[in-house]
Amino acid sequence: MTYEQQLSADCALVENYLKTCFADREPRADLYDAMLYSLLAGGKRIRPVLALESCRMCGGDVESALPLACAVEMVHTYSLIHDDLPCMDDDDLRRGRPTNHKVYGEATAVLAGDALLTAAFETIAGAGGLDAGRLLSAVACLGAAAGSRGMVGGQVLDMAGEGHALSLAEVEELQSLKTGALISAAAELGCIAAGGSVKERAAVRRYARRLGLAFQIRDDMLDIQGDEATLGKPIGSDARSEKTTFVSLKGMEACEALVREKTEEAKNALRETFADPGFLCWLADELVQREK
Amino acid sequence: MTYEQQLSADCALVENYLKTCFADREPRADLYDAMLYSLLAGGKRIRPVLALESCRMCGGDVESALPLACAVEMVHTYSLIHDDLPCMDDDDLRRGRPTNHKVYGEATAVLAGDALLTAAFETIAGAGGLDAGRLLSAVACLGAAAGSRGMVGGQVLDMAGEGHALSLAEVEELQSLKTGALISAAAELGCIAAGGSVKERAAVRRYARRLGLAFQIRDDMLDIQGDEATLGKPIGSDARSEKTTFVSLKGMEACEALVREKTEEAKNALRETFADPGFLCWLADELVQREK
Repeated sequence: MTYEQQLSADCALVENYLKTCFADREPRADLYDAMLYSLLAGGKRIRPVLALESCRMCGGDVESALPLACAVEMVHTYSLIHDDLPCMDDDDLRRGRPTNHKVYGEATAVLAGDALLTAAFETIAGAGGLDAGRLLSAVACLGAAAGSRGMVGGQVLDMAGEGHALSLAEVEELQSLKTGALISAAAELGCIAAGGSVKERAAVRRYARRLGLAFQIRDDMLDIQGDEATLGKPIGSDARSEKTTFVSLKGMEACEALVREKTEEAKNALRETFADPGFLCWLADELVQREK
Repeated sequence: MTYEQQLSADCALVENYLKTCFADREPRADLYDAMLYSLLAGGKRIRPVLALESCRMCGGDVESALPLACAVEMVHTYSLIHDDLPCMDDDDLRRGRPTNHKVYGEATAVLAGDALLTAAFETIAGAGGLDAGRLLSAVACLGAAAGSRGMVGGQVLDMAGEGHALSLAEVEELQSLKTGALISAAAELGCIAAGGSVKERAAVRRYARRLGLAFQIRDDMLDIQGDEATLGKPIGSDARSEKTTFVSLKGMEACEALVREKTEEAKNALRETFADPGFLCWLADELVQREK
């Protein structure tokens, strides 16, 4: 199986699992439609893939990590729904489609996000095939990454930073919280599912932290030089909202170099610890070159 | 110790625990201020008290249930913050003070709610003194009660029902989800912390479900005949938003009788199973007579 095929297989696992998550729920006005509209909107599924492949690399059974992987995707999806709200980034378009509140209204969008966040923890708690100790570690890991010390904290800094200049250190902290924490948690959850050692989890975290940073810098670059049709959203939004980005601070060329540097560091973190980090090293290289 | 003193002692435990929860967090713009503004706004703490006393009644150590009790209060608080938002109930006043978004703005209020919901699960996962199996059961119980099949589902029905008439069955379902599920979860979490039996948990659930119903009917009555200064919020809001309530369906007198009936059923559910349900029976009677 090539890495491309392995990625496709992982994504298929994730899509199928997510499709079953709320399938048995009765109509509750538009709530489930709104939740599934965003959850099944064809994201790249990078976070769940990181969870599955980190689990495999740590010697675990990929299927056992699937509920944890999908829980991370629920958290990611809820964050997109809330970030797009009029009182936040006020975005109309996401992944080429109208944002959640544009279709279902603001109240339902807020509640769909709340329900997805809650469902993430419920999904971990209800996962079979892993003992309670590992699942509880997974709840703690995801909670820390998603909350005030992680993703939500980053979003608060992001909102507070709009319209005035930030330093490089401030942008790094903001992005480390806003996107880095959840990407790291995804990879760590795979390690937790596999019962990985402290050393293994630390290596996975180093990899994911650097990958997350490279990913975000690439995101900032695509907001300037990307193709709107490919991205599924308008470019130039950072400039319009006067956000300080890696590109606005360091320029495009330095960012290109930084993305390559962080990607190499990410791969080295795995090579030092694992016998077969092949897929996750390949994935890091793929993400450097992505156009969306 | 009288029941009044026991209630005060429980509330003091809860207040002290909640005060320490985010005390070590560095400033993250207004996020922690916004979270604590609502969390420490002097609510009645009924849910955490139910958790603590249900734990005691089931033979457990009250202190071991404290993180679980406070996790429920975090979920309750987040739900109030989000419910008050302009796109939801659009309320300006809560517990005699301006609502969260009136003080901190809509974006921070949404994020403070998100962070409190996340912190609830993190708090359970990080609780010492209980084994992983019980804590994981607590995560599952709280997740089910808070999410789309519980509180969020009830809020969706509440929004959808505004401006047109609902049947008694519809109002009962709505309230059972919107307020009943979390009240029941609070009591069940205490039983879980104590390692209570299936039979004990079922009895606790029966009690809490009936208590929650009586509580909500009393709430509807107070929205008509209550005192604004005592309640800390304007009365008549249900009528203004054309909400169908127990009072609008059955009249004030029938509601009085119903509250008494449900309270008796609640107490009987405990008396059938527990040797010493004294405090929780007393609490049920207290809630019937409450003026706020």
